[in-house]
This record gives sequence, structure tokens and C-alpha cells, in this order.
Amino acid sequence: MTEQEVPSKVIEIAEGIKTMRIRGAGRIARAAAEALKIAALEYGGVKEVSSFKKYMGKVADLLIATRPTAVSLPNAVMYVLASLHRANPRTFEDAVNAVVFSAEKFINESINAVKIIAETAAKRIRENSTILTHCHSSVAVSAITEAYKLGRLVKVYSTETRPFFQGRITAKQLLENGVPVVQIPDSAVRYVMHEVDHVIIGADTVASNGAVVNKIGTSQVALAAKEARVRVYVVAETYKFSPTTLIGEPVPIEFRDPAEIVPESWLRNHPRVKVLNPSFDVTPPEYIDAIITEIGVIPPQAAILVLMERLGWALDKIKQGGFTKIKFEDFTE
Amino acid sequence: MTEQEVPSKVIEIAEGIKTMRIRGAGRIARAAAEALKIAALEYGGVKEVSSFKKYMGKVADLLIATRPTAVSLPNAVMYVLASLHRANPRTFEDAVNAVVFSAEKFINESINAVKIIAETAAKRIRENSTILTHCHSSVAVSAITEAYKLGRLVKVYSTETRPFFQGRITAKQLLENGVPVVQIPDSAVRYVMHEVDHVIIGADTVASNGAVVNKIGTSQVALAAKEARVRVYVVAETYKFSPTTLIGEPVPIEFRDPAEIVPESWLRNHPRVKVLNPSFDVTPPEYIDAIITEIGVIPPQAAILVLMERLGWALDKIKQGGFTKIKFEDFTE
Amino acid sequence: MTEQEVPSKVIEIAEGIKTMRIRGAGRIARAAAEALKIAALEYGGVKEVSSFKKYMGKVADLLIATRPTAVSLPNAVMYVLASLHRANPRTFEDAVNAVVFSAEKFINESINAVKIIAETAAKRIRENSTILTHCHSSVAVSAITEAYKLGRLVKVYSTETRPFFQGRITAKQLLENGVPVVQIPDSAVRYVMHEVDHVIIGADTVASNGAVVNKIGTSQVALAAKEARVRVYVVAETYKFSPTTLIGEPVPIEFRDPAEIVPESWLRNHPRVKVLNPSFDVTPPEYIDAIITEIGVIPPQAAILVLMERLGWALDKIKQGGFTKIKFEDFTE
Amino acid sequence: MTEQEVPSKVIEIAEGIKTMRIRGAGRIARAAAEALKIAALEYGGVKEVSSFKKYMGKVADLLIATRPTAVSLPNAVMYVLASLHRANPRTFEDAVNAVVFSAEKFINESINAVKIIAETAAKRIRENSTILTHCHSSVAVSAITEAYKLGRLVKVYSTETRPFFQGRITAKQLLENGVPVVQIPDSAVRYVMHEVDHVIIGADTVASNGAVVNKIGTSQVALAAKEARVRVYVVAETYKFSPTTLIGEPVPIEFRDPAEIVPESWLRNHPRVKVLNPSFDVTPPEYIDAIITEIGVIPPQAAILVLMERLGWALDKIKQGGFTKIKFEDFTE
Amino acid sequence: MTEQEVPSKVIEIAEGIKTMRIRGAGRIARAAAEALKIAALEYGGVKEVSSFKKYMGKVADLLIATRPTAVSLPNAVMYVLASLHRANPRTFEDAVNAVVFSAEKFINESINAVKIIAETAAKRIRENSTILTHCHSSVAVSAITEAYKLGRLVKVYSTETRPFFQGRITAKQLLENGVPVVQIPDSAVRYVMHEVDHVIIGADTVASNGAVVNKIGTSQVALAAKEARVRVYVVAETYKFSPTTLIGEPVPIEFRDPAEIVPESWLRNHPRVKVLNPSFDVTPPEYIDAIITEIGVIPPQAAILVLMERLGWALDKIKQGGFTKIKFEDFTE
Amino acid sequence: MTEQEVPSKVIEIAEGIKTMRIRGAGRIARAAAEALKIAALEYGGVKEVSSFKKYMGKVADLLIATRPTAVSLPNAVMYVLASLHRANPRTFEDAVNAVVFSAEKFINESINAVKIIAETAAKRIRENSTILTHCHSSVAVSAITEAYKLGRLVKVYSTETRPFFQGRITAKQLLENGVPVVQIPDSAVRYVMHEVDHVIIGADTVASNGAVVNKIGTSQVALAAKEARVRVYVVAETYKFSPTTLIGEPVPIEFRDPAEIVPESWLRNHPRVKVLNPSFDVTPPEYIDAIITEIGVIPPQAAILVLMERLGWALDKIKQGGFTKIKFEDFTE
Repeated sequence: MTEQEVPSKVIEIAEGIKTMRIRGAGRIARAAAEALKIAALEYGGVKEVSSFKKYMGKVADLLIATRPTAVSLPNAVMYVLASLHRANPRTFEDAVNAVVFSAEKFINESINAVKIIAETAAKRIRENSTILTHCHSSVAVSAITEAYKLGRLVKVYSTETRPFFQGRITAKQLLENGVPVVQIPDSAVRYVMHEVDHVIIGADTVASNGAVVNKIGTSQVALAAKEARVRVYVVAETYKFSPTTLIGEPVPIEFRDPAEIVPESWLRNHPRVKVLNPSFDVTPPEYIDAIITEIGVIPPQAAILVLMERLGWALDKIKQGGFTKIKFEDFTE
Repeated sequence: MTEQEVPSKVIEIAEGIKTMRIRGAGRIARAAAEALKIAALEYGGVKEVSSFKKYMGKVADLLIATRPTAVSLPNAVMYVLASLHRANPRTFEDAVNAVVFSAEKFINESINAVKIIAETAAKRIRENSTILTHCHSSVAVSAITEAYKLGRLVKVYSTETRPFFQGRITAKQLLENGVPVVQIPDSAVRYVMHEVDHVIIGADTVASNGAVVNKIGTSQVALAAKEARVRVYVVAETYKFSPTTLIGEPVPIEFRDPAEIVPESWLRNHPRVKVLNPSFDVTPPEYIDAIITEIGVIPPQAAILVLMERLGWALDKIKQGGFTKIKFEDFTE
Repeated sequence: MTEQEVPSKVIEIAEGIKTMRIRGAGRIARAAAEALKIAALEYGGVKEVSSFKKYMGKVADLLIATRPTAVSLPNAVMYVLASLHRANPRTFEDAVNAVVFSAEKFINESINAVKIIAETAAKRIRENSTILTHCHSSVAVSAITEAYKLGRLVKVYSTETRPFFQGRITAKQLLENGVPVVQIPDSAVRYVMHEVDHVIIGADTVASNGAVVNKIGTSQVALAAKEARVRVYVVAETYKFSPTTLIGEPVPIEFRDPAEIVPESWLRNHPRVKVLNPSFDVTPPEYIDAIITEIGVIPPQAAILVLMERLGWALDKIKQGGFTKIKFEDFTE
Repeated sequence: MTEQEVPSKVIEIAEGIKTMRIRGAGRIARAAAEALKIAALEYGGVKEVSSFKKYMGKVADLLIATRPTAVSLPNAVMYVLASLHRANPRTFEDAVNAVVFSAEKFINESINAVKIIAETAAKRIRENSTILTHCHSSVAVSAITEAYKLGRLVKVYSTETRPFFQGRITAKQLLENGVPVVQIPDSAVRYVMHEVDHVIIGADTVASNGAVVNKIGTSQVALAAKEARVRVYVVAETYKFSPTTLIGEPVPIEFRDPAEIVPESWLRNHPRVKVLNPSFDVTPPEYIDAIITEIGVIPPQAAILVLMERLGWALDKIKQGGFTKIKFEDFTE
Repeated sequence: MTEQEVPSKVIEIAEGIKTMRIRGAGRIARAAAEALKIAALEYGGVKEVSSFKKYMGKVADLLIATRPTAVSLPNAVMYVLASLHRANPRTFEDAVNAVVFSAEKFINESINAVKIIAETAAKRIRENSTILTHCHSSVAVSAITEAYKLGRLVKVYSTETRPFFQGRITAKQLLENGVPVVQIPDSAVRYVMHEVDHVIIGADTVASNGAVVNKIGTSQVALAAKEARVRVYVVAETYKFSPTTLIGEPVPIEFRDPAEIVPESWLRNHPRVKVLNPSFDVTPPEYIDAIITEIGVIPPQAAILVLMERLGWALDKIKQGGFTKIKFEDFTE
Repeated sequence: MTEQEVPSKVIEIAEGIKTMRIRGAGRIARAAAEALKIAALEYGGVKEVSSFKKYMGKVADLLIATRPTAVSLPNAVMYVLASLHRANPRTFEDAVNAVVFSAEKFINESINAVKIIAETAAKRIRENSTILTHCHSSVAVSAITEAYKLGRLVKVYSTETRPFFQGRITAKQLLENGVPVVQIPDSAVRYVMHEVDHVIIGADTVASNGAVVNKIGTSQVALAAKEARVRVYVVAETYKFSPTTLIGEPVPIEFRDPAEIVPESWLRNHPRVKVLNPSFDVTPPEYIDAIITEIGVIPPQAAILVLMERLGWALDKIKQGGFTKIKFEDFTE
């Protein structure tokens, strides 16, 4: 197979992910599944299982290379390719069908996931509750809104979330849904915590030991909640769970532009100053009461179970291989 | 199928559960399994698998409706119906056999469970130990008695357990088994904790994140044990593990009659007084060292594993469905 | 001096304390101060300072012997005799005046103490607060009522306080003052703690390292409050602070009648059962946010400062003497 | 004495404090001491001690009324007037001298305090240390600079301190002193804490139980430090210690303009949003390793000792009076 | 089958394990797998599956009897025999092949395990890290060396590990690999902890609830790390996970010779002294951030998952049987 | 005054301290007091107060220079010189008498201190207690022996205390007193902690914030005790309290010879190895329940109170001076 054999629509999707035209963990994941489906349907090579598998492996690697740090991307790809492996297809047609079926299944489940998580989380909220959330997470907003519809909310504290003030997006969306919101600076979290009944936060990535990587400040919020015996719920689709953490890969923490923290002019006037502007921090599992996913309410320590259940075959590959880097060609051999 | 087709013996069992003639988590569960077995053997409809499945789904819903909050009841039903699903029977006879076999298996395992748990727990008790227990749990009494027979016990502290003084039942049963018992008021738990080596308590329900719902006061006992680095063991049959907590359902906490706390006469003389009399509280998993079940000693965070292993298929249904209420007809389609 | 020289009114007061006709920490203390004043005024011996001092020392020992474990009794006596020492009187008249003056001062301060403590504590209560209290303490009732008058209270949780249900006295008095009360069993403290803003409890004795001895169960309440970052305030007059703890004397914990825990009949039917019924437990200083006394809001670790300030001279005696038992004759030499 | 008898220079100083021309805890305190000195020297009334005392009491109340919440102001006044009481002057001249002497002493000590605290704190810093500070405190900047001069610093993390970015002032001043500074958002404190050896922060007010009131976010910093066993030092002059907390007065927490948190335009577009913008929070004593004052390194629980030592006589007045408001006329009767 | 039918090479290996000629968890495990392979290949009985299974069960029991407390031994045996069960062989030849294949697979995986664990663990180490390790573990040495090769290490603290000073072996091996080592007494662990970034330790046994049994002192190290928010990684091959802990068996703690602690001569001179010299202690799961195995990075609470995945069938046997002692004959019936 | 005017007996004592002929905190302190007494009695200069004071200041500095890090030495000197200041003597004879009187008082109190502390501590020990102690402290041995005489001890765990095995001295002395002792390695402290009722340890130095500097390993013992809610008592004479910590001076931690940890031969064979051998560590006040001194049982946070009470005047000097080094000439000006 040569590079040009990859269908142009697939290339287009890959470009879309690369240039961040397609963004957001969910949208990226679904685009990748769609691309694999297209690739399977438009496959033009020899109609043999082995050849098809090899081709799909290459498409997979092509897709993953577009955003190496987005955890939902390899998860979507693994999910779809795993079906190819599990089905153990005898005929070429069976192989194509397996890919198409699982790609569609992934897309549907992904779309439903937010709704299921929101309904599940809402049931966990006590009557007359005050909730605190940090940064902006569409799943968290959905969950809080759902709890509000059940008539259980008194108030939501929403942090402003420096440096980008994503908390204002959270506040805006909640207000649109009718939810009463109080905006606070990030540093006032502990001050209001004695009033809070539940903390609900999203996740960028869930590691294999149950640690949650999320917007900088999340671990402080969780610590302050733990200190006050306030329950912390992380709401996260299962494609946020990182299989590579199982083989020791740390989740990369991006360091962003100093000018987000201090204005350019100030930086010019104080040339010796340094700025550290990390995007994420790591909340240890002992500060999280439950992770609420579309497949249920689990303790953070069961993250590995999610990985095994959802990504079983690929996981075996990873584990057996002692991989230092995931390469999908190896998976389809 | 019409309602009257359900065998009268099954109706009778359902009534028994409803009217609390049949009570206790274990007895209810076994009665339900027995009812399903009878229903299968006395099925009078069309001898086709699909028709039989539908019938069994209805019987299941009938049984579960008798005590919606008893966690062991749906667990027994799910266990038996899951076998019907797993066996994937081709003939009507195979289908009936699958139900009968798994119903009998459930009943036998349930009967053995207390014995296995007691023997397992007893092995965890150190020489010359002092144990503290709260309320009355027949599994806890068995485990403590077993440890006593191994010659490892010095003393058992048993709380009186207001308002119903179930601790006296515990004391009475332990004394009958020869175990030396010291009765204490609930408020003296922390006072004696420095002498205690192990806390052993039962469970009403185990949630999917490992939290244990049990008699009011249990979480205080566990907290005081944690403070003093005393090991806390929960002894619980696997049918105490609640699958609906996985979909966010909180375990309902019953509020009982004020007159259990203050005499009627006092209430009449003080009409403005309010009384809060909750039956249960929730002990978080971080205060529990292990849950000892008939399938082994597990950390509380592995509760979900028990749910998956024992109740696999039904669980998939629950998770996929985003169910807000479990309906067994859906399970057997 | 012979025994009969002690004025009959003094003897009468001593008898009143001994037979528990005079009871309650405050009343005992004031009665003792009154007795010392009477003794001074009715002294019939040689009108010399040294002779008078010796006489007063004996009266002091006579009073203290009536209730050896009541901490407020020796505190009152020390307070009055300390003045005799501090004034360093040259004439007999000066000596008598010193005793009379300080006895009256003690009595007045003692009467005012509850009021001052209540007003001070009330200022510490936040708007819309829910308070939890344990057992019955008249200072705690006063403080809570004062906070209620300031319009800051939503609700008070009052434990029933087994075995004697003193919580009902608390509830009754608070209800009479208009305060909304919810009665709970002792084992429900942790269950309601997430709603509580402040715990306010009295003290039987405050030890020199800041530990508080109070009704059994207090330390569990404080532990559950600490776990939930709820502030714990102990309200206590300074005569509750025990000088003998400074020389290592543990505060004696009384073990009461088993029949308070289980009925006599039950005990007869279960002759091998043992019952442990301790009256008090010890709350460590790290679980107490502040002790509120009539001389101010202090951290528990400053208890020793109160002892030094209020009881300075006698304390020096105790410390220098390496006393194992306080004997007032030695103090007045 | 009539109002106009107060010297015009004193009135002028009072105005300066009121209009915030004179600001900063130290400057306010010294201005008040100076005003009392002037008032004493320019006293034009009857040359009798009692009359002079009454006059000084009125001047004191006049000064304190200018900024009722500034803790250093009544502290300065009490310090100076206490000397008048302690000296127990027989002649009018002695009384004037006592005031003048103690006013000058207060001013000198106040000026030296920052220097002594900085030198003391610097000695506590280990070799090759990384320090974290929050907000801007001139004492903290001095202490950190002093440690840098001793060659013990590797790096200082300085939070930006929303909403007013006072952290930039801290960074600027430290950079001018040559200290290497890394600016971080408030939410990154826990992220960098594993690198930090010491936290050094200032205080707005120290309460009688050792709690420290300081810029919002301080208690989160201290909590994150405690979690990581990082030492927390509060640097504070003794006039930051609040005597009124001893009588239960909570330290008032100012709530500032919502527009400091979200821009006016945003607020107009989202009229239902609420904003909570507290200036300060309270750090409990258990999260503070030591308070470093000009009279030494003390545990936070010894705050009351500082109050007693520095403000002894006035404190007695406060305590005896059960004051709800401090009125200096009462002090000088 | 009679005892002499067991091939002499198998007997020889069994002797080697018994006499400790073959020692070390890994070597023992591999020797046992090799012995089973030999036993299968040299089986001289009736060529029927049932007979062969019985024979293999006896060989298994023979091997396990040689060192009843070595956890890796029964794990190797179970792993190999499980394959016999899973394959469900129809012919004798298939049965032999299943044993041979799985024995070789076990041996290979065991050899690779250390390498995979080391590479996985190394990826978890941050730049410029200081590591602390306790006792000697070849996996820990490999992991630390690997991290050093990645250029991430500044320093390794290695405890001397009384009484046998195995820390010197650790130091020696690390020095040979070029790693900079600082040797410290066991009691200095908390003293240096503020400099440490990661603790890496081996394991003798991992229990089913995630507790780790390792060289005495390990739990103190982990406690001091937890206190300082330092990450604790346990590196352990999966054959260190104990299946018998699942049925309540405590991991036996050996008490060794007093003369290892105090010299014989001292003991003779002080005949009344007692010495307690335990080999191991138990670190609870809450003090361990992750266990790094050859099948991935897991939270300690997922230990049971490893047991289930690796040892599935045998585990079912154990659980169903309520075994108090594992007997392999029962397994092969 | 010239150097030779110092009496030869004083010089001799100074030499004795310098060459460690006189050693042990108590003996050094008493020798210094004795030297000051001799110096006063043999003073040969001008018989004027000012000249005498100057002379005594120089003698003081001479003594202190002999062992700059021994905390009991300056404490003894300060105690004696403080009396000179307090007495404010008008005549030369009064000045000499003040020194002689306070020197003798110090010596007597010092001798009694151990006895008083032991009796006080013994009263705090519960019936049937197991005690754990670390290293060797004669006060701790006395306290434990005293508790044994009261019939309250079951067993004493004594750590071996690497590298010098001072625990064997402890064991030996306790055995001589009849106390049953179990010797354990330092790393087994947490293993036995669940059996321990009280930890009793000595102190080298107590800092002004209540932190205790003692033999390396002490802070680990205290941490393990805290984790298990076991009470930790520090027994320490008041001359162990360090006044210089009040001005920020860290207590110096000595690093001893590597050859105490690893044999010289091993060091030669492994030239790149480093060894860290600290003598002491710092136990924070929150891990200590009480410090038992000869002036009473105090919380660690009251250490500063002891400093103020015992060393008042000198302390004022230190505080006012912002001293970086204590110089006694300045004290006597």
C-alpha cells in the first residue's frame, strides 16, 4: 500500500484534527471513528483479511500522528481496531463489516455518553445542594443542569479559572439553563467550601491508577473539598481514560505562554522574571469519591477496569509488548 | 401471557416477601430464586424460547415489585435470569434447565456464603485480639464466633445500638457461643478504641464505588477506627452489592418514627421539637480495609468487580440502557 | 485550733457539698468561696496573721475533702487563698479583708462568667448557622440561646446522650427559649455533620495540655466535626481548668452502673455479659478550635496560661512541691 | 474638656487616617502614637492626673473612630495608654512623661520590627531553598530578601494574586533586590508545591486563637503546604495581633466590587450572575508552623501570649468588662 | 501413579528449592515451571487426559510443599496448570502441549518482566529527581538504573536496612551502574524525605486488598512519604501477588534470630531481655500510589484484578472451595 | 579586669566542659552554675555593683564559649545572671548574694527535676500499659521505671538506635530496674505500634515553637504513634528549652562520621558512595501530646511560656536586641 491509497476524505479528517479545526475530546474521537469507517468502505487493495488489516493499521497510525497528546483519539482508534481483532473475521467482507459496525457503535455511544453521565450524576445530588465546579466542562454543565431540573440545586459556585476565564463560559451556559450561579476567584474556593455539598468537575485524562488530569487548580479544589468532607465527582466519558498511562507514560502537562499570566509590557519591563503557566495538574485518586462515566459510577481505582473492558485486546498488545510507543501496525499483525 | 398464569406458589412467595413474612436479606434472595425455579418448571405457555423468556421477565418484575428497596432481591433475580441469557439456549428444554440449574446454584451458594465468609474472616484475626462490632449482623456474629473457636479472641465490644438495641441480640448470640462480650453505649466507641484490634461489621448494601450502607453509627465507628489505625472489615455476601448504584441511584436511607428516639409523652409535651431518626449511614471506602465476601477478601474499591463478575450480563443491560429503573422485561428481549 | 472552732455555717456548707445538696460546678465553687468568707469573718482565734493563715488552710482542706474530684472546688479555694498570699498582709485585719474581698470577687465573677461566655461565643456564630451540641451544659445552652437572639441560628441538633438522655434537658431548655431543636440519636452525629456549621459543647474539666474531659461521646462528636472542617467551640468557666493535671494527675473517669445501659432483668438473664459505662471521655486539643472562657477566646493549648494567670501562687506551690496530693496547710505556711 | 481642646495637629493626623492619606498598618500605628504624644505635650487642661487621664481617653477614642477595622490602630493606642496605667503616676508631670516615653518607644520598636523579623526569618531558611509567597507583604519581601542575601535561596514562587495582581508588586520588589522570581497563577500553587521548601506569608490580623486572617487564597496555600509537609511561616509585627478577637469579635471580611472579578460589560450582559469577592480568608493555626514577630518565633497558639505581654493592662480591662465595643474612656477611669 | 514415577529431574529441582540452592522469587518460580514442563514431557503413565491431569496435580503438590511460604511458587504452578484447564484438551497430546506451552510462556514472561517493569517505572520519574529506596530489590535497582540512564536522577538515598544491611547491596549495584548513592541509617528516612521526589520499593508479596508485604521498615518509609506527599511506587512482578490472601490467609511474617539484633554475648549478659526481629511488615494500600507490574501501572486496589486475570481458573477453584489449604489434586479433578 | 582574675577553679570547670570531661546536659548546667557561684564568691575587684556585674558577664561569656551548641549551658548561665538583674541590688554584698542564692537554687532544682518529671510522667501511664522508647534518655528511663513501680507496665519496647545502639543502654538500665524489655530494630517501630499505649522519649532541645530536637529517628517514631493515636510524651528538664530558637536560630544538626554507618573497609571499596549520618531530627509539635517538665505537664506550644517564665529577663534582652549571637556582657550592662 502506498500513502496515496488512503482515501482523500480520511486525509481531510486527519488534516482537520491536526489544524484544530476539529477540536474537543468528543468531536476528535468521533471524527477518527468516522475516518476509519470511511477507510474501510473505500479500501481499494487486495480483498484479503491480512492485507486489509495492514492497511487499517497504517490508517490508524496516520490518524494518531495528527494529535499525539489527545487521549480520546487513540482510544477511538483502538476501540474500532479491537473489534477487527475480536471478530477474528474469516472473509474480507466480515472484516470490513466489523470495522464499520464498531465505528458506528463508537460514534453513537459517544453521543449518548454525555446524556447518560448527566442523568447518572444528577441522581447523586442531594436535595437543596450547593455545587462547586472549576473551569469549563460540557459534561459537568450538563450534569449540573440535570440536577437543577430535578429541583435539587440551590446555588452553583463557578471559579473564574485563570488565566483564560473559562469559568465565565460555565457561568454563561448555566445561566442560560436557569441555574443560579455565583462567580468566584480561584483563590476563594476554600473560603466558600463550608457551604458546598458536592464538587463536580470534568477531566482531560484519567490515568490507569485513577489519577485525574484536568485544568490547573483542580487538585487544589479537590484537596479543599477533601479537607471539608465534601464529595468530589469527576464526570468523564470513557474515552478520556488513557491506556498509555498503563505502560508508565506520564500524561504530558503543557506549559503555556507567560503572556497569559502577565501582560507583555510587564514582561518587557521585568526581563529577569520567569513565569510558569502549566495547563493541567494531577488530582490523586484519594481525593475523588467517584468517577461517573457512561458505563457507570466507579471508584477512581477502577479506572483500569474501564481500560480493560473497553480496550481489552489493544491493551493486551500494549502490555505484552512492553511498548514504549503505540504503533498500530503492530496491533494488526 | 396473563397475570393469572403465574403459578400460585410463586404468587404466594411474592406475598410472603411483600408482607415481610419472609425477611432478612439472605432469606428473601433465596425465596426469589426458588420462585423463579418454580415458575420455570410450571410454565404452561408455548414451548418456545422467546415466549419462555418473556414470561420469566414478567415473573422477575412481579417479584422485584414486592420490596423495591431490598438489594438482595433484584440481585437474586438477575443472577438467575443472567444464566438464561448466558446459556443462549436453543431449545425450550435447555432454557428451563438453565433457570433451574442457576436458581439451585444461587440457593446453595447463598447458604454456604455465611460459612465461607466466617472462616475467611476468622483467619484475618490476630492472636489475643479484641474485636468491636456494631448493631447485629449474623455474618459478623459467625465470623467472630469462628475466630473465637480458633482461640484468637480476648474480648468483644458490642455497642448497644440505639434506638432498637440490636446490640443486645449480638451480645446474646455471642454469649451463647461462649464468646466474652462487653456491652457499651454507642457513644463509648472512641473511648475503648485504643484497646481494639479489629472492627468487624456487616453491611446492608455495598455501593459500586465501595461505600458501605449500614446501621446508623457505622460510619462513626469506622472513623474512630481509622483514627486509631484499627483495621475495619466488612463481612457481606455478594448479593448485598447494589447494581443500581452503578447507574447513580443513591441507596435510600429510611427515616423512622420519632417515638423510637423520644417517648410519645415527651413528644406531646414538647410539640415544637423535631426528631431525625435515620436508619442507616454511609461509610466511605477509605475507612474500610477490606470487604470479606464468599468470593474472597477484596478492597472496597473492587466492589464493582464483584458486580461485574456476578451480574455481568444484566449489568451490561443496565449500563447500555442508561436505565433509570430496572425493568426485567427489557432484559429478556 | 480544734475542729469545733470552724463556724457552724461553714460546716453546714461543707455538708451540703458532700451530700450533693449543693451541686453543679458553679454552685459548688461559689459555696466554697462563701464558706471561706464566713470562716474569715467568724475567726475566733489569736488575732495574728500566721495563726489566721493556718486556720484558713485547715478550713480549705476541710472543704476540699468533701468532693475530692470536683475540679471547681479546689479552684475556688485556691483563688481565695492565693489572695491571702499575694496581699502579703501585715496586720490581721488586712488578712481578713483580703480573704473577704477575693471571696466576693470570685463569687461575682463566677456569676457573670456564664453571661460573658454566652455573649462572646454568640459573636463567633456565622449567619444562618446550624449548631450541634452534645449532652447538657448550661453554658452551651446560654451561648446557643444568645446566638439565636442575634438572629443567626437556623437549627440546633441536640444528641439524646445515652444513657441518661440529658440531651432532652438541652432540647427542653432551648425550646423554652424559642430555639428550633432537632433531637438525634448519638449515633447519627456523623450523618448530620455535613449540615452543621459549629459544634458548641461544655466541659467538665480542662487539662493543662488543653485536652477537654466531658460527657462520654464528646470526643466522637469532635472527631466527626474535625473530619468535616466544622469548628468546635468548648464553652467553659475558668474554674473548670484543672491545676492538678499540671502535675500529671489524670482526670478520673467514673464508671457507672451497668444497669444504666442494659435493664437489670437482661443482666440477670445474661450473667456472663459485662458492661462498660464510662461517664466521660477525653477530647484532644487538636480537635478543638477554641475554648471560650469568661477571660476570652483561647486556643486549647493556652489552657496552662489560664491556670497560671488565675491560680498563679498556688500553682507555684504545686510545681515546686512536686506534690502528689494538694494539701492547703502547706500552702499557707 | 470640650472637643476643640484637642490639638489641631492631632485632629490633622486623625483626618489623615480617616481619608486614607495615612495608610498601611505600620504607618497608621505610628501616626496614632505620635498623635497621642502630641496630645500629651499640648494638653491645656487642669494639671491633675485624673483630668489628664480622662482627656487622653477621649483623644484615644477620637483616633480609633477614624478606622474602626484597622487592627494596628487600637493596638498602638492601647500600648501607649497602658503605660499611663502601669506607671501609676503620682504627679501630672509623671503622667505626661509616661505617655511621651511609651509613644516614642512604640514608634521606634515599630520601625525596627520589620528589620528584626526579616533577620529572624532568614535564619530559619535552609540552604538551597525554594520559597513560595502569596500576595504582597513588605515584611515577607524583607524576609525573603534577607534570606537571599545569606545565599540560601534558589528561587521564589510568587502568586499573581487575583483580582488585584499584588503578586506583581512582590515580584517587582524581589527582582529589584536581585532575587530570582517565578510568577505563577493562584491555581498553580499545589502544582509547584513539591518543589517548595518554605512558605512565607504576611498577615493582616492574627486572632487570639492563632488563626491568621490574610489575603484571600492564603488558607489554600497553607493547606497545600501542610499536605506536602512544607513549613509555613507567617511574618507579622505584634501590632497585627487583634485583642478584640479575645472577646469573640470575628475579624470582619470585606466583600469587594464584583467588577474586580468580571468586567462591567460582562456583568451587564449576564444580569442574573452573582459574584462573591471576599478580600480575606482565615488560616487555622494547625496549618502554620510558626509566627515570626519582632519579639520572637512563636507557635500560632501563643498569639494570646503576645496579646497579654504587649497589651496587658488594656486586655484586663477588655476581659473584665465583657466589652462588646472598646471604649477608651472606660480604660482611663 | 506411585511416587517414584516422578522424573528424577523434577525431584532434583524440588530438592533445589527446598534446600534454598534455588532462591529468589523469580528463580524459584521459573524452576517450578521448568519442572512441570519436564514432568509433562517425561510422563510415563496411561496416555489419557484424566490420568495425566491427576499426575500433574500430584507433581504440583510435590513442588509446592518444598517452600510453603514462597508466594511465587504456587503462582507459577497455578499459571501452568490453569492452561491445562482452560485448553480443555481432548487428546493426551493436546494436554501435554498445553502444559509445555504455558510453562515456556511463563518462563519467558518472567524473564522479561523485570525489564518491562524497569522501563515502565523509569518513565514515571520526573526530571532532576531524588529517589529513596529501602532494602534490596533487583527490580527496584533496575528501575532506578533505567531512570538514571534517561538522565532523570540527581541522587538516590538508600537505607542501610538493619539487621542485614541489604541496603549496601543496593548501594553497590547502583554505584556499579554509575548511579550516585547516599547511604543513610533507617532512622534518617523522615529526615531526608523533604528532598525526595519518589520512593521506589520492591515487594515480597502483594495481598488481594492491595496491601504490600515487604522488608521490615517499608511501611514506615511509605508513611513518611505519604506525610510529605511523595509518590510511592512498588515495583513487583505479577507472581508476587498472593492468591491465598483472597481466602483470608494472612501473609506469614517470619521472626528471626535475636542475635541478628544484639550480639550473642550481650544476650548472655542480659538473659531477661527479649528481642523481636520481624522480617516483614505490611504497607496499607492507601500509602502506595501505584504498583508497577509487567502488565502495567495499577493502583494497589486493583491487585485483585491481576489475580483474576493471571490466575483465573485456579482462583475460581479457591473461591468456590472455601479452601483453607490449596491442594492441587483438587484442581485437576 | 584581666583574664587571669578569673578564679582558677572556674577556669578548671570551663576546661572540664570544653574537653567533655564534664558531659550530659544536666551535669554541664550544674557545673556552670557552680562556676558562677565560685566566681562571685572569689571576686577580687572593686566592690561596686557595676564592676561586679561586668565581671560576671565576662565569666558568663567564658563559660558559654566552651560548648557553643549545648543548650543547657547558656540556660544555666542566664538563669543565674537573671537573678542579678531582677534583684536590682543596691550594694555589692546584695549582688554577690543574689548570684550565690540563684546558683544554688538552680543546682538544687536541676537535681530534683528528674525525680519530679519521673513521678509526674508515671501518673500519666494507664494500667497494663506497653511503652515504646527510642535511644537513651535518663529522664525517660526514670519515668518508665517509676511507672513500673506503680505496677502499670506490661512491657517496654526499646529501639536499638543505630548507629550507636544507645537503645542497649536503655534496655540494660531498665532490666536492672526489673522492667521487662523487648529490644527491636529501629525499622520495626510501626510494626509494634498497634500494641503500644504510650511513647516516652527524651529531648536534646525544645524549640520556642514546641518542636523537639532529639536523636535521629525520633520524628519517625512520633509520626507512627500519631498515625495510631498513641500518646507521645516528651520528658525534658526546662534547661533543654532553647532561648535562641526564639530569635530564629535553628538548632544545629550535627553530621557524624560515615564510618559509623558503613565500615571503613566498605567505604574504601566503594569510594563514590556518600553517607549522610545526621545525629538529630526535628519532631513537630503536632506529633507531641505533652511535654512533661519539672514545672508541669504542658502542651508543646507552651514551650515559649517556659522560656518566658524561667528566663524572663535575659529573654527580654534577646528580644530587644535582635541579637544574632548572645553576648553576656551586653546583658550585664
